[in-house]
Amino acid sequence: MLPGVGVFGTGSTARVLVPLLKAEGFEVHALWGRSEEEACCLAKEHGIPFHTSRSDDVLLHQDVDLVCIYIPPSMTRQIAVKALGIGKNVVCEKAATAVDSFKMVTAARYYPQLLSIMGNTLRFLPAFVAMRQLLMEGYVGEMQVCDVRVYGPSLLDQSYGWTCEELMGGGGLHTAGSSIIDLLSYLTGARAHRVHGLLRTFVQQNGLIRGIRRVTSDDFCFFQMLMGGTGSSSGGVCCTVTLNFNMPGSFVHEVMVVGSTGRLVARGTELYGQRNGSKGEELLLSDSGSAGPEVKEMPLPHLRGLSSMVKALRQSFQAHEERRSWARGSVAMAPTFEDGLYVQTVVEAVKRSSCSGEWECVEIMSQEPDPNHNLCEALQRNKN
Amino acid sequence: MLPGVGVFGTGSTARVLVPLLKAEGFEVHALWGRSEEEACCLAKEHGIPFHTSRSDDVLLHQDVDLVCIYIPPSMTRQIAVKALGIGKNVVCEKAATAVDSFKMVTAARYYPQLLSIMGNTLRFLPAFVAMRQLLMEGYVGEMQVCDVRVYGPSLLDQSYGWTCEELMGGGGLHTAGSSIIDLLSYLTGARAHRVHGLLRTFVQQNGLIRGIRRVTSDDFCFFQMLMGGTGSSSGGVCCTVTLNFNMPGSFVHEVMVVGSTGRLVARGTELYGQRNGSKGEELLLSDSGSAGPEVKEMPLPHLRGLSSMVKALRQSFQAHEERRSWARGSVAMAPTFEDGLYVQTVVEAVKRSSCSGEWECVEIMSQEPDPNHNLCEALQRNKN
Repeated sequence: MLPGVGVFGTGSTARVLVPLLKAEGFEVHALWGRSEEEACCLAKEHGIPFHTSRSDDVLLHQDVDLVCIYIPPSMTRQIAVKALGIGKNVVCEKAATAVDSFKMVTAARYYPQLLSIMGNTLRFLPAFVAMRQLLMEGYVGEMQVCDVRVYGPSLLDQSYGWTCEELMGGGGLHTAGSSIIDLLSYLTGARAHRVHGLLRTFVQQNGLIRGIRRVTSDDFCFFQMLMGGTGSSSGGVCCTVTLNFNMPGSFVHEVMVVGSTGRLVARGTELYGQRNGSKGEELLLSDSGSAGPEVKEMPLPHLRGLSSMVKALRQSFQAHEERRSWARGSVAMAPTFEDGLYVQTVVEAVKRSSCSGEWECVEIMSQEPDPNHNLCEALQRNKN
Repeated sequence: MLPGVGVFGTGSTARVLVPLLKAEGFEVHALWGRSEEEACCLAKEHGIPFHTSRSDDVLLHQDVDLVCIYIPPSMTRQIAVKALGIGKNVVCEKAATAVDSFKMVTAARYYPQLLSIMGNTLRFLPAFVAMRQLLMEGYVGEMQVCDVRVYGPSLLDQSYGWTCEELMGGGGLHTAGSSIIDLLSYLTGARAHRVHGLLRTFVQQNGLIRGIRRVTSDDFCFFQMLMGGTGSSSGGVCCTVTLNFNMPGSFVHEVMVVGSTGRLVARGTELYGQRNGSKGEELLLSDSGSAGPEVKEMPLPHLRGLSSMVKALRQSFQAHEERRSWARGSVAMAPTFEDGLYVQTVVEAVKRSSCSGEWECVEIMSQEPDPNHNLCEALQRNKN
């Protein structure tokens, strides 16, 4: 039986998600927005019976068993942790910091019977599912290089807000880079152990953001990840990622894996491959083209991925009578909160590298940093 | 009046060059090959009256006024410097090291009346000539990012040789990266002041290179260059370059410049552009498709570039009655030996960065390093 759903957020993803959920038979019982007005507007549009700007009203709503959180990164941790504490299943977007991600991991570990997955949706895109399968079957031989490029128009909101602020989780690296980092670990089956990167904010002001306000989030980012080798002599896969959001009017989303005997390239939602020795590329998976509403603000790979994730969620819950129970099977490939922490750790290492100019190690947090750390240090210093 | 030409080399470039020279009306009087056999074979093929394996025989040949040097990098300096000393005009490929390049610069400075240009031929490709013109006219606004990728099959020769040896000037960075480094300084009008890079040799042995022999030259390289800013707040243009020569059956050559108001992309030999606000890309320059012989081993942009350079040489020499005189005009855009030294310096800085993991400064040599430097240091140490 399908669980009742509560949705957090009124942004472009939430707008796409609600109809997708409904199309799969989920009932959306409650909607939260930052303002009553925003919530009311979207609720009316999609016939959602209850809307609010107080998060507890959704979390405690008796018909809500699954909470989907698509809100600014800095608010995600608080809602996600609370939802798990109340006993609700959670699908959510990334948090703003590694510390927040770590708190989410702690909560998820504490409630293993609850569903807790990250809404990084590229893993579910059929092209990437097929790509991973082919990689595992040895289509490219030994993997050498992953080369990713994402080009598109500005990610900034119309008005000044979190998308402009690096510390609030804005910027290309945090927004688009996160899904790529997750995807590459899914495709290669390995994790980055060292990263190097360069971030730039080319457009610091525009027609809408001016005066004393400046954009601090990156609109261009280039980073490299050295993936943990599996003992191979070449020392694992090299990943290079280029993100450029100063390219209005285009959307390029290309993920290429080159190996010793061939290569695979996902362009947008389609998958191509070429084995060494063959004359040309073959189309391995075309886009079925049947993915719900077309949304201007949401790139097709993310739209299709989100749609596939909702389908997987439906299958997962359908398998059980009890509406809060779910089967791991069809959502087993989804990124866990642990994956979310890994991604956030890489993002922060790339940012560190951009400042230091050096390769930075990716060290996953294993315990929460002491909030009194600085205080303790000061006391320590006084003692000596 | 056109000068008589002597060609050094029997490799793929020399094979393409000879017919191009003849097509423009140059007479090739002499050919040098590493072995009598190689020289004889190519000379017969193209009806060159004289061939030899002794370099002086070409350099001192009385009908030779222009020497074209397309030989392994480690041999280039010696021939080029000698040719200038004998009073011949020189077109040549890159040397193997910055020290060699510096020696060539010294010779070129000493004989300013002689033509001395680098055979990095991408500058002459019509698509890049047009690109530079449009960049200067402000098509993309303020330049932000250059993004280059070159993908192709292995650069290794059939048998073990200099192409396998990093120290001999083999590898993707030295071979393909050099022309890109030169091109980007031509397009942006700036030079790299800091670089970061990573080189890999994924294929260290193959069916032909095995046993105790290993390839040391890179087959994968990506590097970033921060170009000298012209006082802009964003600190100049960021260039990212990806070279991958583990992709048999393909040849991708893409150079993109993104700016504040639009972008330009050269794909192969064609130029596309898109201004911000316009719906799609426009084709700005298509390939005329009229460039002499098709050669499997030589990528089209290089072939077309070489062809345009030979045309420019013809114009340059045609302007004068005396067959050793030339007009700067049509070859003014050609890379000088100074440009060659710059390129070599960047190549070596990228290699250093790949070892150190750090950003490396590009410092152009201003005097020849003392060959007794190490000895001096040792003496110094003994004294203390």
